[in-house]
Amino acid sequence: MTYCLAMSLDAGMVFVSDSRTNAGVDNVGRFEKMKVYERAGERVIVVLSAGNLSVTQNALGLLDHQAGRDPNQLSLWNAKSMFEAAGLLGNAMREVERRDGDYMRQNRIDPSASFLLGGQVAGEAPRLFMIYAEGNYIESSRETNYFQIGEIKYGKPIIDRVLTPRTSLRDAVKCAMVSFDSTMRSNISVGPPIDVLVLEAGNLKVSMRQRLDEGDPYLTQIRAAWSEGLKQLFVGLPVPPWYDELAARQQAMQAQQ
Amino acid sequence: MTYCLAMSLDAGMVFVSDSRTNAGVDNVGRFEKMKVYERAGERVIVVLSAGNLSVTQNALGLLDHQAGRDPNQLSLWNAKSMFEAAGLLGNAMREVERRDGDYMRQNRIDPSASFLLGGQVAGEAPRLFMIYAEGNYIESSRETNYFQIGEIKYGKPIIDRVLTPRTSLRDAVKCAMVSFDSTMRSNISVGPPIDVLVLEAGNLKVSMRQRLDEGDPYLTQIRAAWSEGLKQLFVGLPVPPWYDELAARQQAMQAQQ
Repeated sequence: MTYCLAMSLDAGMVFVSDSRTNAGVDNVGRFEKMKVYERAGERVIVVLSAGNLSVTQNALGLLDHQAGRDPNQLSLWNAKSMFEAAGLLGNAMREVERRDGDYMRQNRIDPSASFLLGGQVAGEAPRLFMIYAEGNYIESSRETNYFQIGEIKYGKPIIDRVLTPRTSLRDAVKCAMVSFDSTMRSNISVGPPIDVLVLEAGNLKVSMRQRLDEGDPYLTQIRAAWSEGLKQLFVGLPVPPWYDELAARQQAMQAQQ
Repeated sequence: MTYCLAMSLDAGMVFVSDSRTNAGVDNVGRFEKMKVYERAGERVIVVLSAGNLSVTQNALGLLDHQAGRDPNQLSLWNAKSMFEAAGLLGNAMREVERRDGDYMRQNRIDPSASFLLGGQVAGEAPRLFMIYAEGNYIESSRETNYFQIGEIKYGKPIIDRVLTPRTSLRDAVKCAMVSFDSTMRSNISVGPPIDVLVLEAGNLKVSMRQRLDEGDPYLTQIRAAWSEGLKQLFVGLPVPPWYDELAARQQAMQAQQ
């Protein structure tokens, strides 16, 4: 399983992905699920991928291969907009699905995959897209300013509670770390290393990139503080007022019998 | 969608279920998903159901129907153990599946369903089972002392953090309320009324039963306190130490260029 998260903020974008690939219990490998197309001053496109690894690798590989053979071929290196880039990647995934899908399904292998594609191309604002398994895609908005793919549920509540378009990049990174911590705690197949990438809006180059390995001190610190804080918070919550009342009434009834 | 939760503690058991059934956006109905078989001093069996409503209703209906026609027929009213009760319900679900499954699948309707079955029959300790869509089942243990069915992921982290076999019934109810709050916040198709039932171990009758409707003051209070507490907790968490360092180095590099 995989967990990838991309946030679109007024200040820029935050991308986070784990690097664990699980093809059965005894075949856990590590593959980076974050790919960056950067030409400073002109474009930064970040692609996060989830689902069948051969499909996501081949879709990206197909685009790179075509671009390598013919620089005029439309690719993530020369797409004129993020919208065009999203369409290209969706089409590449459809092509891989046409080529490999039936062979995989014959052996009950699920060929489905999905992408998050975000970044900025000179001449337009930063944009973020989610590309579905079928190759169609949607763009983020101010109302829904983040996308997740893979194991999305455990890490969603904290994002919904704290993220807005006005959140700072630094707080967004912190929020993403808590979201990953919750996910890793509940799904053992999501795990370090975790790749973090930050783009400042208008910068047209990667602002910051960091890899957090197993046992990373900050992850450990966040995990302990969050866990302890949640327990304290739980202890401080009110007890159901009807609990004691109903229990007392019940006891009184039993005493009468 | 549905969310049902059953917890097995040293002190007894807590069962919680929502009552919203969603068969498409404009057909949201309410059906109680908690059914109680109680004969004070002799047995209390609580069944929570998730999945296809016609399958769960018919599986339970089949057992009731057979018991009504012939009191000697094996049923939830006379099963000699919780283990036997779980097997009966699993078989009833298989029978409904045999009768209705193909007709439903022909119209792309998913006939899958599952149950939580817990309680106590005189002569043995309280026991809790989860019955899968295929009719097979598992029993809870001290290591895994709760089961969930339906929309399980959003509400799981808090239970994992606070529940142990030694948790009091009152704290377990509080934990269940937080778990339901997280679920309702992230999945609109899970909603009030919420049914809560508590069994004290050895009591052989329902200790407490409560229905929480939309706008219930305790739910509202828990929701506000939990939400506000989480936000505060998040604000107090440390910022990634590498964030500022990397950003400063990046700026220095840009200044040199």
